[in-house]
Amino acid sequence: MTIQVLGYAAHNETSALVPYKFERRNAREDDVVIQVEYCGVCHSDLHMARNDWGFTRYPVVPGHEIVGRVTEIGTKVKKYQVGDLVGIGCMVDSCRACSACHAGLEQYCEEGNTQTYGSVDRHDQRTTYGGYSKTIICSEDFVVKVPENLDTKAIPPILCAGITTWSPLRHWNIGKGSKVAVVGLGGLGHMAIKLANALGAEVTLFTRSANKEQDAKLLGAHHVVLSTDELQMKSVGNQFDLIIDTVPYNHDLKPYIPTLALSGTIVLVGYLGEISANSVPMIMGRRSIAGSVIGGIKETQELLDFCGEHNIVSEVEMIDMQNINEAYERMLKSDVKYRFVIDMQSLRKEI
Amino acid sequence: MTIQVLGYAAHNETSALVPYKFERRNAREDDVVIQVEYCGVCHSDLHMARNDWGFTRYPVVPGHEIVGRVTEIGTKVKKYQVGDLVGIGCMVDSCRACSACHAGLEQYCEEGNTQTYGSVDRHDQRTTYGGYSKTIICSEDFVVKVPENLDTKAIPPILCAGITTWSPLRHWNIGKGSKVAVVGLGGLGHMAIKLANALGAEVTLFTRSANKEQDAKLLGAHHVVLSTDELQMKSVGNQFDLIIDTVPYNHDLKPYIPTLALSGTIVLVGYLGEISANSVPMIMGRRSIAGSVIGGIKETQELLDFCGEHNIVSEVEMIDMQNINEAYERMLKSDVKYRFVIDMQSLRKEI
Repeated sequence: MTIQVLGYAAHNETSALVPYKFERRNAREDDVVIQVEYCGVCHSDLHMARNDWGFTRYPVVPGHEIVGRVTEIGTKVKKYQVGDLVGIGCMVDSCRACSACHAGLEQYCEEGNTQTYGSVDRHDQRTTYGGYSKTIICSEDFVVKVPENLDTKAIPPILCAGITTWSPLRHWNIGKGSKVAVVGLGGLGHMAIKLANALGAEVTLFTRSANKEQDAKLLGAHHVVLSTDELQMKSVGNQFDLIIDTVPYNHDLKPYIPTLALSGTIVLVGYLGEISANSVPMIMGRRSIAGSVIGGIKETQELLDFCGEHNIVSEVEMIDMQNINEAYERMLKSDVKYRFVIDMQSLRKEI
Repeated sequence: MTIQVLGYAAHNETSALVPYKFERRNAREDDVVIQVEYCGVCHSDLHMARNDWGFTRYPVVPGHEIVGRVTEIGTKVKKYQVGDLVGIGCMVDSCRACSACHAGLEQYCEEGNTQTYGSVDRHDQRTTYGGYSKTIICSEDFVVKVPENLDTKAIPPILCAGITTWSPLRHWNIGKGSKVAVVGLGGLGHMAIKLANALGAEVTLFTRSANKEQDAKLLGAHHVVLSTDELQMKSVGNQFDLIIDTVPYNHDLKPYIPTLALSGTIVLVGYLGEISANSVPMIMGRRSIAGSVIGGIKETQELLDFCGEHNIVSEVEMIDMQNINEAYERMLKSDVKYRFVIDMQSLRKEI
């Protein structure tokens, strides 16, 4: 038993995204059916569409920053009702039995979580398809409630860019009196600044572009440091309890380590690959280099509630589904402030 | 006002250590004068004697694992009396005013601590000389009380090798239920095993030498893993809350990262220099690479008290002061189980 859904898919690593009709399962007893209203465009969507990581299963329907309304619920669904405004992030399932899952850290599920798109469903072995589509179906346990008081179209990036920076902020106990730095001002970086600021931290942006200063301060950064300027870098030695490094490509970590306070941590959230450092400033200041990926479902709900209370959304540029390929090209040039979001009304016109 | 002291010194980077008469200050009001009974031989003694790090000030009198008896006290000394069994580790002073010092973490003093030898005293600008000498003089605030119930000659290494592994064990909250691994079975490694075991952790030794298994188990390791054996390494994936890496030379960290549990940390305590890793297993398991150096004075006292309660000392091989140069050669070949300690009686004969 399946339903037909219209979405946008890439069919191989060089093709543009095009309209694609595919099947989704009928709602299982714990499922909610969601009409997608808005879907954010994450860098990983582009990486997956183009098979940059080598494990894409085609056709791929990207999209894991999904906000929509519940249109139907399974017989055993308890948390949601038809009409609720809800979200889905990067995961739609996990083993639910390992210690990570029990700790609400499904992103670190020992068996691997089921990704929102390009994964294999644990129950029926069907490929998962993402949010570049009219409808999505997901177990209520991986759906989060979205506050109604925010600008809905600016919420989707919270579900990936937001939670990816929120999780380390919380894990490393950032709050009033903390000093936090953010490396890179993009989709993740702009959320990191807003969230760290709202948690009460003093926030510094490290950037290579002097022209980002004004924006950074509007977003909530108290200071901006040009990471290419040795004098400026020296002036912020021994300061930061946490540095959130959002840069998605290989870059030199060495200049940042001495800017960490005693027992401080630089956490990589954007770059997958080889890193190098020197152990001397790490040993001489009990400093750490860490990694972190997205966040758990409970943490994501906590973040959305926090955003509702503090009136925080992403900075977005709206596009139609039909413009996704141009959006990818612009994203490659970092030509977006700070996240594209697809208005799914545009897809409904296509039938 | 000074006193004449006999010690052993290196006069340049190629010379052997030879008897050396030098001056120490008379006791200041907060000083205790200590007759050195035993002094441990640390790898850094050799590095400093040979100027391996490029900042040795000659002549250098090494030695920072010092145990002896108080023979005299300054007018304002409160904690110690003549006759007390006491110890001095790697530091004899610090700024005492920065936040690290206030937190009892003088090893991370923002102005830099005053090292037991080869440093410059903060008050009289005289060079500090270490424990390869009959007498040493130190502010009571950097002297620790040594339990009388232990084998005194096996205590000195606790003051450097011991505290260097104890501090990370405590900082990362190791206790009952924790899983700890130790990389390398030398001076530091053998103390790490004993201390982690006594704290209630399940302890694994990573080693490249199959013949270390029996020793490791006698010292308190529950498991021994050959780090050169890929299958054995795979069998211990996702396990360790903390890995204490004591290896003092450049080595590949990559095989160890996936053996860390979720949110686990590998802490480098022995190697100063370039490191490399891959961020993927760090990000996918919120794993960290950290550094740590010795420990604070309060922590060192806590460790000695713990050793007294748990009857823990180092494994040592006793030497006379006159044999220090052969001991260095053997140490270079890792030919010691697990720490040389100089019996200072041998120096007293020289007058």
